[in-house]
Amino acid sequence: MTPLTGLPGPFLEAVQRELPADFLSTDAADLATFGRDWTKVHEPRPSALALPRSTDEVSRLLRLCSEHRVPVVPSGGRTGLAAGAVAARGELVVSLDRMRKMGPVDVLGATVRVEAGAVTEAVHQHVAPHGLTWPVDFASKGSSQVGGNIATNAGGVKVIRYGLTRQWVLGLTVVTASGTVLELNGALEKNNTGIDLRQLFIGSEGTLGIITEATLKLTRVPEALNVFLFAVPDLAGVLALFREARTGPFVVMAYEFFTEKCQARLRRHRNVRVPLSAPSDYYVLIEVERGEPEALEAWITSLFERGLVTDGTLAQHGAQAAELWALREGISESLSATGLPHKNDVSLPIQELEGFCSELESLFEARYPGWEIALFGHIGDGNLHINVMKPDDLTREEFLKRTHEADHAIFSLVKKYHGSISAEHGIGLLKKDYLPYSRSAEELAIMRSIKRALDPLNLMNPGKIIDV
Amino acid sequence: MTPLTGLPGPFLEAVQRELPADFLSTDAADLATFGRDWTKVHEPRPSALALPRSTDEVSRLLRLCSEHRVPVVPSGGRTGLAAGAVAARGELVVSLDRMRKMGPVDVLGATVRVEAGAVTEAVHQHVAPHGLTWPVDFASKGSSQVGGNIATNAGGVKVIRYGLTRQWVLGLTVVTASGTVLELNGALEKNNTGIDLRQLFIGSEGTLGIITEATLKLTRVPEALNVFLFAVPDLAGVLALFREARTGPFVVMAYEFFTEKCQARLRRHRNVRVPLSAPSDYYVLIEVERGEPEALEAWITSLFERGLVTDGTLAQHGAQAAELWALREGISESLSATGLPHKNDVSLPIQELEGFCSELESLFEARYPGWEIALFGHIGDGNLHINVMKPDDLTREEFLKRTHEADHAIFSLVKKYHGSISAEHGIGLLKKDYLPYSRSAEELAIMRSIKRALDPLNLMNPGKIIDV
Repeated sequence: MTPLTGLPGPFLEAVQRELPADFLSTDAADLATFGRDWTKVHEPRPSALALPRSTDEVSRLLRLCSEHRVPVVPSGGRTGLAAGAVAARGELVVSLDRMRKMGPVDVLGATVRVEAGAVTEAVHQHVAPHGLTWPVDFASKGSSQVGGNIATNAGGVKVIRYGLTRQWVLGLTVVTASGTVLELNGALEKNNTGIDLRQLFIGSEGTLGIITEATLKLTRVPEALNVFLFAVPDLAGVLALFREARTGPFVVMAYEFFTEKCQARLRRHRNVRVPLSAPSDYYVLIEVERGEPEALEAWITSLFERGLVTDGTLAQHGAQAAELWALREGISESLSATGLPHKNDVSLPIQELEGFCSELESLFEARYPGWEIALFGHIGDGNLHINVMKPDDLTREEFLKRTHEADHAIFSLVKKYHGSISAEHGIGLLKKDYLPYSRSAEELAIMRSIKRALDPLNLMNPGKIIDV
Repeated sequence: MTPLTGLPGPFLEAVQRELPADFLSTDAADLATFGRDWTKVHEPRPSALALPRSTDEVSRLLRLCSEHRVPVVPSGGRTGLAAGAVAARGELVVSLDRMRKMGPVDVLGATVRVEAGAVTEAVHQHVAPHGLTWPVDFASKGSSQVGGNIATNAGGVKVIRYGLTRQWVLGLTVVTASGTVLELNGALEKNNTGIDLRQLFIGSEGTLGIITEATLKLTRVPEALNVFLFAVPDLAGVLALFREARTGPFVVMAYEFFTEKCQARLRRHRNVRVPLSAPSDYYVLIEVERGEPEALEAWITSLFERGLVTDGTLAQHGAQAAELWALREGISESLSATGLPHKNDVSLPIQELEGFCSELESLFEARYPGWEIALFGHIGDGNLHINVMKPDDLTREEFLKRTHEADHAIFSLVKKYHGSISAEHGIGLLKKDYLPYSRSAEELAIMRSIKRALDPLNLMNPGKIIDV
């Protein structure tokens, strides 16, 4: 084995002695790949990559890491957007890529046990023949892994219908910093026996332990879906329509909004057009389950009669539905392809959205006249994606400097309106400095005390979320 | 003020100085009422009762308790079945009875903010005019309080449809042992900013702090419901029918089972009868939403044709549905009225239920021949209520002694089949000694370290769940 910079010799000898020969890699391409997630802000500098094949191997590795004070970064599909899986300080990356096994589907209990390296989409395909699904679903499902989804409590476009990942996890196997293996909750729906330790690890971004296996809760594949696209005059209209959708003759699966500015970028990039007669400042996409055709038509008619929408369409078949979804799902890519977006992922109580967006607009008009803001999001769960686009007359550096200031102003507004600085992406390294906008000093103190209790040597993804 | 035994003089003087005149009570009737929950095993011995009117008063009180080392028992509606709210060691009981305010319903966000002393049923009535409900629902809803529901992560008969209380809590205000007020998560659906501290307090039975306010997540009142009653030959039949119900033409709201032995007790007590032509050993009650009449009839026909049920009925109107529900809901009362039941509330992975019940029966036949076991439960979520009835030829004392041994045997089986010794009632004082059957030594150690981090003086409901 090549000597590894940064890792203690006795640790390497112990790994060589106690774990398989191909357990560690220092291949430069591996380190470049496994040292980072989808963010580009921090330079990856992992010391090595570990590729365990079992919970037991993870446990043996972490016991050695603890003994030799080797910090680790747990690594899933690395699709994160908060630099939670970046090894920027010479950590050992522990990838779950070799742990992708999926057990038989328990149809009666509607559960499946998988290793944490199983890819989200592979889980969907594995359970689909039984008419079941794991309703954790988002654009990166082809790469993201179950363990990463759970460690970041992943969201997505179906949260209004199914909730976050947290709700779809029955049991966890977790290895803590000392190498202790915790079997949490098994496959039980109900288990009121003291503190639910599962909940600590869900969303803790690998700072308390490594999730190695999980028992997932499944649900029935939804019935036939319908997709609407509506034009509304303003954000108040988006919210008024949301109120109607809440009581519509169907179950809302997704309620997304985006602005004409987003569509202008999408047209430049993809040459696709909103299939409505005239452009509008705001659009709403609604996906629903279980609507009867006549009831849906009557509902649309009533919206027009009451002036709640200025235009609208209902997809007549799956291909049309996919075209409508492409108007929403192509936005993020188009913003990056046609300019330099600075992204924020905030959430607000739904009733505060209008006031927040109005002040946000005023703030940018006053301090950054001419800057373009592309707004879209999962309004049904209060999640707003704010994309500040680089003006042509600013250099990249000047833009990044000013968006840094802008973030403080945005997050001050988020705080004022009782929102969160990170709805679903998490904190990682990227939002760490801003955490006090969403969490009080007392909360941070408790988080630190829990971190110290579970990881006294601060070896688990150190420096992510909080410093201890 | 009368001198209070057990409370330090300087503490009483400080309370008198800093809190309202009617803040403390030592009235004997108050102490008898507020010192206990629905369990009868431990003698209540509270030193006094505190009745705060606000979060601020709770905070000031707990600061004084911390300063003067006064242990407290938080008290909600006291409908608990695990002695989690019993003040057996001279604690100060802190009742939320004066904190019952409910805020305006946020229809757009489908949330409502309430004080923790609000009664469950009052919340239902408060939000019903908006077509909304808080789907935390069980027999004691007329007395149980929101704070107690959350502190015990209450279950009930609709868990298969809606999940546990945990899923219906957006925000919490919690006062910790030091008097620190934590505002956790506000009214946000999505907030991925580090450890979700709400989850620590949900289900921790008042051992980490006092929940004083909550923002509840609401959902639409369900559409018209249908209720079936079926006879099946055995437990395997109960589970086979469950598999059919999972894929039936409707949404399952409740899937309950009970045995003929339960019905025999119900007939002795209430003289009500199962409206089926011949008695059967096992019955299943299923409540469903959104079934079309023809689809329901076709489904029933198919069950008969395939021999999955030996008899069955579908309630034709609300009164009939209520009669069917009474066959299930009257069981617990009838067991107590016609004998002495020793109750256990366990859960199992659904696919383990048959093996578990079969071994349970053998175990009792071998060790306690002639003892009667009345089984019923929310099979859809794996929750089994095991009621061991006192044989006529045993004294009460002998029976309690032998059920204590029986509990060890039952919980050993629960452990063998990967179940939980407490599905929904919690641990409190009653199940504390049995906790190692469900939680590993490593889990208990982490629970203790969290307890010490949040309550270093062990003043919050001391002795409940675990000793530290």
